[in-house]
Amino acid sequence: MAPREHCGLCGIAGTPDSVPLAAEGLFSQQHRGQEAAGLMAHTGTDLVLHTGTGLVAEAFANLPHSLMSSGAMMAIGHVRYGTFGSSVALNTQPLAAEVGGCPVGIAHNGTIHNASVLRRNLQREGAIFQTDSDTEVVLHLMARNMAGSGFDVNNALLASLEPLRGAYCLLLLTREGLIALRDPLGFRPLSIGRLPGGGWAVASETIAFSVCGAEYVREVEPGEMLFMAFPGGGDPVSTRFSPAGKLAQCIFEHVYFARPGSLVFGDSVSQTRTRMGARLAREAPCEVDAVVPVPDSGTFAAMGYSRELGLPQDFCFTRNHYIGRTFISPASSSRSSMVMRKLQIIPEAVRGRKLCVVEDSIVRGTTSLTRIRALRAAGAAEVHMRVCCPPHRFGCYFGIDFPEQSSLVAYGRSVEEIRELLDLDSLAYLSEEGMLSCVTAHPSQDYCTACFSGVYASVPDGNPIPPRCGRGDA
Amino acid sequence: MAPREHCGLCGIAGTPDSVPLAAEGLFSQQHRGQEAAGLMAHTGTDLVLHTGTGLVAEAFANLPHSLMSSGAMMAIGHVRYGTFGSSVALNTQPLAAEVGGCPVGIAHNGTIHNASVLRRNLQREGAIFQTDSDTEVVLHLMARNMAGSGFDVNNALLASLEPLRGAYCLLLLTREGLIALRDPLGFRPLSIGRLPGGGWAVASETIAFSVCGAEYVREVEPGEMLFMAFPGGGDPVSTRFSPAGKLAQCIFEHVYFARPGSLVFGDSVSQTRTRMGARLAREAPCEVDAVVPVPDSGTFAAMGYSRELGLPQDFCFTRNHYIGRTFISPASSSRSSMVMRKLQIIPEAVRGRKLCVVEDSIVRGTTSLTRIRALRAAGAAEVHMRVCCPPHRFGCYFGIDFPEQSSLVAYGRSVEEIRELLDLDSLAYLSEEGMLSCVTAHPSQDYCTACFSGVYASVPDGNPIPPRCGRGDA
Amino acid sequence: MAPREHCGLCGIAGTPDSVPLAAEGLFSQQHRGQEAAGLMAHTGTDLVLHTGTGLVAEAFANLPHSLMSSGAMMAIGHVRYGTFGSSVALNTQPLAAEVGGCPVGIAHNGTIHNASVLRRNLQREGAIFQTDSDTEVVLHLMARNMAGSGFDVNNALLASLEPLRGAYCLLLLTREGLIALRDPLGFRPLSIGRLPGGGWAVASETIAFSVCGAEYVREVEPGEMLFMAFPGGGDPVSTRFSPAGKLAQCIFEHVYFARPGSLVFGDSVSQTRTRMGARLAREAPCEVDAVVPVPDSGTFAAMGYSRELGLPQDFCFTRNHYIGRTFISPASSSRSSMVMRKLQIIPEAVRGRKLCVVEDSIVRGTTSLTRIRALRAAGAAEVHMRVCCPPHRFGCYFGIDFPEQSSLVAYGRSVEEIRELLDLDSLAYLSEEGMLSCVTAHPSQDYCTACFSGVYASVPDGNPIPPRCGRGDA
Amino acid sequence: MAPREHCGLCGIAGTPDSVPLAAEGLFSQQHRGQEAAGLMAHTGTDLVLHTGTGLVAEAFANLPHSLMSSGAMMAIGHVRYGTFGSSVALNTQPLAAEVGGCPVGIAHNGTIHNASVLRRNLQREGAIFQTDSDTEVVLHLMARNMAGSGFDVNNALLASLEPLRGAYCLLLLTREGLIALRDPLGFRPLSIGRLPGGGWAVASETIAFSVCGAEYVREVEPGEMLFMAFPGGGDPVSTRFSPAGKLAQCIFEHVYFARPGSLVFGDSVSQTRTRMGARLAREAPCEVDAVVPVPDSGTFAAMGYSRELGLPQDFCFTRNHYIGRTFISPASSSRSSMVMRKLQIIPEAVRGRKLCVVEDSIVRGTTSLTRIRALRAAGAAEVHMRVCCPPHRFGCYFGIDFPEQSSLVAYGRSVEEIRELLDLDSLAYLSEEGMLSCVTAHPSQDYCTACFSGVYASVPDGNPIPPRCGRGDA
Repeated sequence: MAPREHCGLCGIAGTPDSVPLAAEGLFSQQHRGQEAAGLMAHTGTDLVLHTGTGLVAEAFANLPHSLMSSGAMMAIGHVRYGTFGSSVALNTQPLAAEVGGCPVGIAHNGTIHNASVLRRNLQREGAIFQTDSDTEVVLHLMARNMAGSGFDVNNALLASLEPLRGAYCLLLLTREGLIALRDPLGFRPLSIGRLPGGGWAVASETIAFSVCGAEYVREVEPGEMLFMAFPGGGDPVSTRFSPAGKLAQCIFEHVYFARPGSLVFGDSVSQTRTRMGARLAREAPCEVDAVVPVPDSGTFAAMGYSRELGLPQDFCFTRNHYIGRTFISPASSSRSSMVMRKLQIIPEAVRGRKLCVVEDSIVRGTTSLTRIRALRAAGAAEVHMRVCCPPHRFGCYFGIDFPEQSSLVAYGRSVEEIRELLDLDSLAYLSEEGMLSCVTAHPSQDYCTACFSGVYASVPDGNPIPPRCGRGDA
Repeated sequence: MAPREHCGLCGIAGTPDSVPLAAEGLFSQQHRGQEAAGLMAHTGTDLVLHTGTGLVAEAFANLPHSLMSSGAMMAIGHVRYGTFGSSVALNTQPLAAEVGGCPVGIAHNGTIHNASVLRRNLQREGAIFQTDSDTEVVLHLMARNMAGSGFDVNNALLASLEPLRGAYCLLLLTREGLIALRDPLGFRPLSIGRLPGGGWAVASETIAFSVCGAEYVREVEPGEMLFMAFPGGGDPVSTRFSPAGKLAQCIFEHVYFARPGSLVFGDSVSQTRTRMGARLAREAPCEVDAVVPVPDSGTFAAMGYSRELGLPQDFCFTRNHYIGRTFISPASSSRSSMVMRKLQIIPEAVRGRKLCVVEDSIVRGTTSLTRIRALRAAGAAEVHMRVCCPPHRFGCYFGIDFPEQSSLVAYGRSVEEIRELLDLDSLAYLSEEGMLSCVTAHPSQDYCTACFSGVYASVPDGNPIPPRCGRGDA
Repeated sequence: MAPREHCGLCGIAGTPDSVPLAAEGLFSQQHRGQEAAGLMAHTGTDLVLHTGTGLVAEAFANLPHSLMSSGAMMAIGHVRYGTFGSSVALNTQPLAAEVGGCPVGIAHNGTIHNASVLRRNLQREGAIFQTDSDTEVVLHLMARNMAGSGFDVNNALLASLEPLRGAYCLLLLTREGLIALRDPLGFRPLSIGRLPGGGWAVASETIAFSVCGAEYVREVEPGEMLFMAFPGGGDPVSTRFSPAGKLAQCIFEHVYFARPGSLVFGDSVSQTRTRMGARLAREAPCEVDAVVPVPDSGTFAAMGYSRELGLPQDFCFTRNHYIGRTFISPASSSRSSMVMRKLQIIPEAVRGRKLCVVEDSIVRGTTSLTRIRALRAAGAAEVHMRVCCPPHRFGCYFGIDFPEQSSLVAYGRSVEEIRELLDLDSLAYLSEEGMLSCVTAHPSQDYCTACFSGVYASVPDGNPIPPRCGRGDA
Repeated sequence: MAPREHCGLCGIAGTPDSVPLAAEGLFSQQHRGQEAAGLMAHTGTDLVLHTGTGLVAEAFANLPHSLMSSGAMMAIGHVRYGTFGSSVALNTQPLAAEVGGCPVGIAHNGTIHNASVLRRNLQREGAIFQTDSDTEVVLHLMARNMAGSGFDVNNALLASLEPLRGAYCLLLLTREGLIALRDPLGFRPLSIGRLPGGGWAVASETIAFSVCGAEYVREVEPGEMLFMAFPGGGDPVSTRFSPAGKLAQCIFEHVYFARPGSLVFGDSVSQTRTRMGARLAREAPCEVDAVVPVPDSGTFAAMGYSRELGLPQDFCFTRNHYIGRTFISPASSSRSSMVMRKLQIIPEAVRGRKLCVVEDSIVRGTTSLTRIRALRAAGAAEVHMRVCCPPHRFGCYFGIDFPEQSSLVAYGRSVEEIRELLDLDSLAYLSEEGMLSCVTAHPSQDYCTACFSGVYASVPDGNPIPPRCGRGDA
């Protein structure tokens, strides 16, 4: 299974189409979370919540027409991945609550890695939790800070951020307006754009802007809170709750997660990936008949790689875009030959040829191995592989769901051992330095490469070991 | 809306995995029919039917485990498109009936264009029809021919084919075995492959073979019936029910419908499309900064085009593979800017550049126009278009669902008028001769090009006008 | 399990409310069939069918509002019980078909016991059957008789009745109007009533008239076909297709099936049952503290019994009207004490008292035994039982679903042996003569008592043994 | 619409069948709440919650088999009526929460009428509420009392009861065991019984004991908390949290709500109702041909009435036990004659006769009027009515959902005016004194008769007016 991003965010302010535009913004970020979706709209009088499980199309299948066409001027939305316990529905976001009598909705991308400590303290003081989510901690902190903040939600929120450790991009909706903020280290991306008719869009990836016609303005700064007053959003009011400093932006967003077509951390994902392919070609060239992209994630890297070397890029895999469980049971598959359901071989492009497959990354290695074997079964003369990032050897505390460290194919193995395991003629990874040289908007020390290097910008108390995944909320 | 193939077929004989393999074979041909799916299995004692509506994954979601793992040695399956009246469920195939006391299942790809005449005659003689499907006519003819055929199903079937006019690939399942046949003009594709452990696979497209590990053997010949005896299939018994002659194979399967990775009519679809792109480059070259494929259907044609001219191929569109209705109502979309949900622009690949978009075909022109406008809105310096087939000006009697003739953008318009309508800097179509020069397995006179030329190999009595679509069964 | 009536019918003619009134008429006859319901309406232009599985409320939950308020002037409906194979949905009625180009709907209560012979003959001639239902035989016969009847549906129907053997009340809807008919022996009830604003209602039980405000007119005669012309019904045209003769009306309708509040075969069910109770009191009096009705079926018989003897009638059972499977598994019920879910004891009415339970009938005896044990466990001093019909010892060919003969408690047992088995202080059954003396509208020789006497008015060829249940359609 | 009880409770302790027995106990109390059901089980390691909407059979349709057969030794369950806002699901009970780190489930029957004041205070202190339910207030009070109670849940609960005003029977499940308690005034019933194999059952009505074979022990005393230690329940530990005093038990439980077969407040419901009917006969006799019960609620009262006067009791109504919306729209019903769906007339028992209908109570009067008109339409010579309680003129603060005061037919009308409105030949109500004389287990001053008298035992602050219904939780 591939590593999984936990969540995607989209907020819209200042247009009566905020609900459909937020829904479209989530739909365009569906790759960031496929298990549940939700949105909350500010209708002028009420904050109305709608959540559901499954893909956006399923979760919003019965989104009331009255809400869709309510003319609500503000909305925030969330797609999520991952479950805590069995209850997807319970942890669906935005979470809604009254804090000090004020209705609030909150949507979160990231992982607050000291949430369980904070939660335990709050429970001791009499707080009742309804979800397993680290996000709910923020709501309880806000509720307790309301009295001390003169019942001003924005101030109560600012007071609640201080104890948080880890990664958090937050969108909040209150009676007063829409709030967007990003943790001081900036682990996850969040950008703001201007809607054509006025008003604002905020999203994890800028691909959400294209579906609503918004023009990219800038990133929300790490340690910055933006407030857009209801109903129009006005000029967003920026508050810094933490001084600017060294960042820890997730380089893996560029390598794998984000969609080509998006800007993240100020760089074009498609261009970054093309540059990574080219850099990899210079670091580890290969003499083959064709460079083979793995659709769709490896397309741009393969293009960069092939152009740099003047090699043809040939499609040896064809993708079945329909999804659904396989009908072949483990028992029967042993009797039948191997099944490649998602990517299928184009045999006439493979037979007798020397091929170099360009992958974005290798995590467990099982998927790569299936593909390599399929190429060999179809008669490839040679199969080489080039990977557009360094070997994955560590977990993540900041919002990405990697398998257990012992399941990482590169854990405890040299590149040569991996090559042998994967039955490749040659294998090379892009260097960390090479990878970081391909992003341009921020200096390379502002990126987190912990999953390659094991160097973490922030570590949970009493938990110094490389983490397992599955913590936190998104 | 794009033209729509009506149906896909898959049959498996001679393996206890026939049910899961047939289901996978349908799944790999999902593009040929998304509204319903069904399969019938021969368990040794019974012919068991399971059908459902929606995609294969939905239709087979509650396929009983007992059937899946029944060890049934034969199965036939069908995916379908299109509804007649409101009842998708009623027309789902395979159809099942007892003919002369013998249970029979039948699955059909094509259109029997004299079905309504045959149906009326049968009704006059006391036949009761349960569906709107042209396929049911075949069952009633068989039932009436049983007595005269000594209650031999195969003979009753052969006797029933004579009055049929139009396109029909048929798979039948009987107590005796599995039957595959193709009409004398061979409108639709049907191939046979050998399963690795013994047994046979039959499918509209050979991509179905790759998921079940079958090796391509040959096409089922036009005018040929193949019989595979239960349970193992043995050596398929070939019966010719019509002499070999000039064929009318659908060239649009190569242009648009079939998946790259399939062989149809004996040719590789990916190679045919690449050759079409190259031929188009010679017929209508273009001076641009980049050739732009339309994912995914135009990918191979664009590759052929760009390589032939030595131009770079750049991805300016990124595809959202998730599907679902838009949340933006017509009312709100007028207030917002344009939405491209399925294909989204990668702005940095477009701005200030001269681009040549390669399309497989243009039917109504509305989709192309949306894309062209999106490229212009993103700042393209020039937008040219090259189309890998001639202009579509006629309907189809043989199993493809085109819009009404008056909705075809090329109907009554010159290429220059289309160019102007689509706001293009230049536009060119591949010539019919050029298109036919790219298929190699059959001579070019063995292809039907009626949708381009208006020359039909067979026309319904009393209906000489170019047809509307939506007739017939698949 | 209790014996089960297979079906109930309701037809409405001559009012724009025919659809809701037919639905209400079925709802009031829900006890005659709980597994599926359907109706067909004549909208003036079309015969529109809607069927569903489950109770009327479920089956019609998504009955389109457009149909409900279509103003259709005629409708026929059907509730059914019992499944043949697994497909309830397939056998749901009305069945719809085109016979000789004419659309026809048909709903059936009864069992045509030579249907399988007729079916085999029709199949040999090329007919294709879509259901397992004996009703479909009638449609095929009609289709074959259309040509010979000058394509007049009514005549084709009359010609099709001749070969039928067994029990059949039929409602048909055609373009021309609504047809109601009853087999020559009159096994099942069917009555006609006049709607308050004009028009007609036809139903198995007259309780259906009360919900639509219709006034009872008379029974449809055995061997009579009534035709009501579209749209208003006019004066129903009566055709006798069989001469009047000795009848075989089902006495068990009066004993058990029909609802108090209905007339069947011209007699009031509540009055017949009260008379049966009184007669039973004279035949087999009992010295007890109280007569105990079994709600709700034994209420009237117990009233007749108690009044005749001047004994108080006390409610010792209270009924839970909600339905649903038990949550107690066989395993756990052995650990717990006995569960009476449907009827629960009122302990204070039982303790220390001598009780006489009046039952309508005893079939397997298992339910009675449960109740008797519950009374004893609650401390009853004595438990006697009086049954308002003779012992059940034979099956039914004519539309009622009894358990296998060997499961009938009275099969091969004397009354004394049954008493002992049921742990009763005394037990008596009503005599056949006594039972028949309680109906007044027809002479007693016009009733079928085969389930008590084993004397059948009509027997399937080659099947002279007492029948199992579950044959036929309704 | 009839007045509606809000909730029913059932708890089982000390048997591995606690889950199925609790489910059956709820099913037998289905009349106390039809909109949602839930249960929580103590598996030894976990407190597992399952809730659903609709009837018990629906809500528990997908109750996991693993839970059903988990061998959980303790379970509490709840059926509920009534919604607050649109979210039935949200307010379904038992509610689950962690209080001070301890998991707790709570189920509530009654209304805490100062809940909104308590809630507002808790919110000011930073509590976040998830439901609209007054029950959640108890959980938050417990959470806040945990620290001060040394993290002992039972003590925290006792400390939380003090501020509560109104009616509350509570069942709680904790790691330590099962708690049952009843408010000091004892508004709602709650009894305890002993299971046959050891262990305990607690339920609102003792009918729940009969389905699980439990033997009635006694009422839970007003102001008493019973604690049954996990797993076996042991000897329940009784704690009085309020001294014994004058009570306010709801007399309407005896008049209408509770099922015959139950004991409530120590009296047999069927006997109390029979006595009420006899007393009414003495207070207001009637010269008629027959006394007519209204099934099923009026059955026992009618029996008492008829026996006291030596009059025959005749069934003029027959009940359709199936439920579902009517198919007749208001528009069409004006064209058709009147529809009686639930109770239908037996015409032959009505025509030409003088009848006295015995009702348990009259609230709005609309249902009674429909029945009276149906009797007159069927030809009754005279229609009299006797009602087994005084006229309803006031609302309820303690858990019953009456319509608005202005909708009560007796509000502002004399008995003579009501008689005229209902088109009766005579009408009489049972006196308050007469009604109270029929209960025997407690002195008559221990009953609340506020809905008849307007004298309330407890009134919300600042809300002295007679209440509307629909407040509180159950």
